[in-house]
Amino acid sequence: MALTFKPLADRVVIEPVAAETKTASGIYIPDSAKEKPQQGKVIAVGKGTKEHDMTVAEGDMVLYGKFSGTELKLDGKDYLIMRETEILGIL
Amino acid sequence: MALTFKPLADRVVIEPVAAETKTASGIYIPDSAKEKPQQGKVIAVGKGTKEHDMTVAEGDMVLYGKFSGTELKLDGKDYLIMRETEILGIL
Amino acid sequence: MALTFKPLADRVVIEPVAAETKTASGIYIPDSAKEKPQQGKVIAVGKGTKEHDMTVAEGDMVLYGKFSGTELKLDGKDYLIMRETEILGIL
Amino acid sequence: MALTFKPLADRVVIEPVAAETKTASGIYIPDSAKEKPQQGKVIAVGKGTKEHDMTVAEGDMVLYGKFSGTELKLDGKDYLIMRETEILGIL
Amino acid sequence: MALTFKPLADRVVIEPVAAETKTASGIYIPDSAKEKPQQGKVIAVGKGTKEHDMTVAEGDMVLYGKFSGTELKLDGKDYLIMRETEILGIL
Amino acid sequence: MALTFKPLADRVVIEPVAAETKTASGIYIPDSAKEKPQQGKVIAVGKGTKEHDMTVAEGDMVLYGKFSGTELKLDGKDYLIMRETEILGIL
Amino acid sequence: MALTFKPLADRVVIEPVAAETKTASGIYIPDSAKEKPQQGKVIAVGKGTKEHDMTVAEGDMVLYGKFSGTELKLDGKDYLIMRETEILGIL
Repeated sequence: MALTFKPLADRVVIEPVAAETKTASGIYIPDSAKEKPQQGKVIAVGKGTKEHDMTVAEGDMVLYGKFSGTELKLDGKDYLIMRETEILGIL
Repeated sequence: MALTFKPLADRVVIEPVAAETKTASGIYIPDSAKEKPQQGKVIAVGKGTKEHDMTVAEGDMVLYGKFSGTELKLDGKDYLIMRETEILGIL
Repeated sequence: MALTFKPLADRVVIEPVAAETKTASGIYIPDSAKEKPQQGKVIAVGKGTKEHDMTVAEGDMVLYGKFSGTELKLDGKDYLIMRETEILGIL
Repeated sequence: MALTFKPLADRVVIEPVAAETKTASGIYIPDSAKEKPQQGKVIAVGKGTKEHDMTVAEGDMVLYGKFSGTELKLDGKDYLIMRETEILGIL
Repeated sequence: MALTFKPLADRVVIEPVAAETKTASGIYIPDSAKEKPQQGKVIAVGKGTKEHDMTVAEGDMVLYGKFSGTELKLDGKDYLIMRETEILGIL
Repeated sequence: MALTFKPLADRVVIEPVAAETKTASGIYIPDSAKEKPQQGKVIAVGKGTKEHDMTVAEGDMVLYGKFSGTELKLDGKDYLIMRETEILGIL
Repeated sequence: MALTFKPLADRVVIEPVAAETKTASGIYIPDSAKEKPQQGKVIAVGKGTKEHDMTVAEGDMVLYGKFSGTELKLDGKDYLIMRETEILGIL
């Protein structure tokens, strides 16, 4: 289902992925890891700002710090919204 | 009724929407959510600054952090005034 | 009486308006409001800075935060002097 | 007597004026005012910086915050030296 | 095995090298050194930002502060991800 | 004796002058002044930075804050080294 | 022996010189000086950054603050690595 929410500026909406999930490249982060980066899927991307052009795109699997972003409930599902600079990298 | 108040710079006036309200896209934020983002309607938009061009427009439904902005009573109704950077995104 | 005081840079001199006053657009801020924005009339405007062009003009009715600005007695009357960025908007 | 001291950058040398003094425009600040702005005469002005062009000129009567600047004794008289941004305005 | 993880912006993924390892140029950092810089191999490099062009390249051996970066588990191995400015130099 | 020490960037080397000294323009700062500005002679001047062009020149008598700069012993004499922005003005 | 270590950005590698050493220009800093600047020889120099062009060169004798930089052991010898802005000047 398409998400109509448009994050402002350099913000990104991420759908967290269960830590046990193993991606195509075989990456996983064990549940026991306390403050290890978390994994999620990019759902929506802002247009960036004058200082920051966006790099990630919808559908990218990304890693981000455990305490990054703000929880957001859209259409009954839990997402995170954070600035792109909080994203560590693309899996 | 048209609002004659013009927010300065990169500020936006928002009319908070009751958390139970369900928008056309089916988004809602349950009342029990403590620090979850809040929903509101943009009533007036500043002209921006040299560093910040405005993105939101009058009538947009937006999400913003629970503690964002300053309370403002205009024509007997309660509004919030905040900088656009505090707005998370457009619903 | 014309005020000869010229505020420097991006500063604005404001004559506070009693909170009970009701403007033409019907706006008022009840006295009981503790930290609600205050209302005042712009009396003098600085020339701005390289980073900040001025928006308000003499005679504008503006809202500003309750604790904004510095008290100033000019010609026996009480004014406030503050940076334009502290002004929330024009009524 | 001409003062040979040249303040650097965006600094200004000010000769404080007794708070009871009443200027031509009739402005005065009563002695009892605790943290009200103070009044003084600009004695010397720096050349400004890349970011800041100077506005005040020698001879201007200015208002500045009570705790602004550093005390300076030149030729046996007490002056204040402060950055122009600390000056509130020109009387 | 090639790592598919792409660090964002000015971030670099580093594979820490055991402190006892002696490089071709004979450099080593004894295990007893408490807060001495650590040694590692650059595994992946971001594209940089508008303000920061990247200098290090994949395969470079680098030194970095003991407490730099965030731990990251990729394909079952431990890495560090940090901003390039945290890297002290290339061995 | 010429000083061969070249201060870096926007730094200036100053030879402090005894507070009782009276300059040609008759300026003096009594010893009892606790945190009054201090007087010194510019001995060496850095080349400035991209953001800061130097104003003072070798031989200038300057005033600086009592706690400005770092003590420096060169050829057995005590000097101060400080950034030019810490110098208040030229006597 | 040539040092193969290349400091990143605006960093400089310095070989500390015993405080009693007397340079050609006769400068020395007595051991008893507690927080007086320290003397060292520049061993390697980074390429600078967009904001900072490098001034010091390999072989320069420099002064730097007592607590500047990070200790670094390269080829069994103790060095310091610090940003050039922490260097006070060239002897």
